[in-house]
Amino acid sequence: MQIAILIFEGLTALDAVGPYEVLRSVPGWEVRFVASEAGAKRTDSGALALVADHSIDEADAPDVVLVPGGPGSRPLLEDERILDWLRAVDRGTRWTTSVCTGSLVLGAAGLLEGKRATSHWLQLERLREYGAEPTSERVVIDGKVITSAGVSSGIDMALQLVAREAGEEVAQGVQLAIEYDPEPPFDAGSPDKAPEQTVEMVRAVAATREQRP
Amino acid sequence: MQIAILIFEGLTALDAVGPYEVLRSVPGWEVRFVASEAGAKRTDSGALALVADHSIDEADAPDVVLVPGGPGSRPLLEDERILDWLRAVDRGTRWTTSVCTGSLVLGAAGLLEGKRATSHWLQLERLREYGAEPTSERVVIDGKVITSAGVSSGIDMALQLVAREAGEEVAQGVQLAIEYDPEPPFDAGSPDKAPEQTVEMVRAVAATREQRP
Repeated sequence: MQIAILIFEGLTALDAVGPYEVLRSVPGWEVRFVASEAGAKRTDSGALALVADHSIDEADAPDVVLVPGGPGSRPLLEDERILDWLRAVDRGTRWTTSVCTGSLVLGAAGLLEGKRATSHWLQLERLREYGAEPTSERVVIDGKVITSAGVSSGIDMALQLVAREAGEEVAQGVQLAIEYDPEPPFDAGSPDKAPEQTVEMVRAVAATREQRP
Repeated sequence: MQIAILIFEGLTALDAVGPYEVLRSVPGWEVRFVASEAGAKRTDSGALALVADHSIDEADAPDVVLVPGGPGSRPLLEDERILDWLRAVDRGTRWTTSVCTGSLVLGAAGLLEGKRATSHWLQLERLREYGAEPTSERVVIDGKVITSAGVSSGIDMALQLVAREAGEEVAQGVQLAIEYDPEPPFDAGSPDKAPEQTVEMVRAVAATREQRP
């Protein structure tokens, strides 16, 4: 199984690295980080860069494509080279997937038309602009398209993908190898569960960021 | 708050990127990736490199130091330059932390003597070699030393650290911002919970890797 993870300037690192760590743990599966041009891509915080070893031109037939999100995904919504590549590889993929606002990029490529899909909770409603039906679930599978919610959800999504492709035993082995037995210290990981003032605080911080030039 | 995350050839990416994503989300906190020499460090799968912007010489007084694990942490156990740096920065840190087999590196630096600590479940007993008391908990806090279990546990560890330093409201805000509401598809993330044959399978794969030159 060949997996292409698209990265770009301003991505959110965990969106990509969470599912990478799951998918690369399956014996025989090969993950490649691809970008418009090969090289180091600075993540949204500015503190870390991830290296894409390949340009998208070198990844024309992945079995799985994965688009992470982050503020840097916004310019991709109008990047015809990236959108053309996504449309082209989607014709041959077994799974076309996204984490966080990566789903908006799939939408901009026309790949979510009429499909149930999810995104980061702050951006969920924007899926309607692309003809998708926003769905408040952590992992949404509609046909061969799998979208997942904000940032950390890609780990859960990738485990589901492994279970479907390689079987539940392999998926459980990967889960154990990465010791994924989560113990979040609070029950505040979704807007339905977090205190209302926390939801408003995160909304306010995000709105401030949106207003930056 | 200044945070230094040590990276190196052959690290496990999620060990570092999970807690990074939490810590970098706290307003005013600054994360730096540091290494023996600045530059790109290839992770254990070979498919990804993370860039360290700074050498350890440029990070002589972090408030928090974090050591991830992975096969590449093994040479660090005898790397006196790294161990000296850890001993030196530990004198001034508020928190000295590790994920996965990063705890063995803290141990080799002499920082776990007489302390309760954890590591990846496959390597947990090795902590005794460094005078530590192996503890099967996901996050172990003993004084200012926080060790966490395998790979994905760094997310939980970092949220606990944020709660202690910046308060529970901030930690809940970060958890919501990264939508950390985990839904693992199986209850197989620890050796106590996974089916016995899964535990044996992961042990066998790890043993094969150990035997490689």
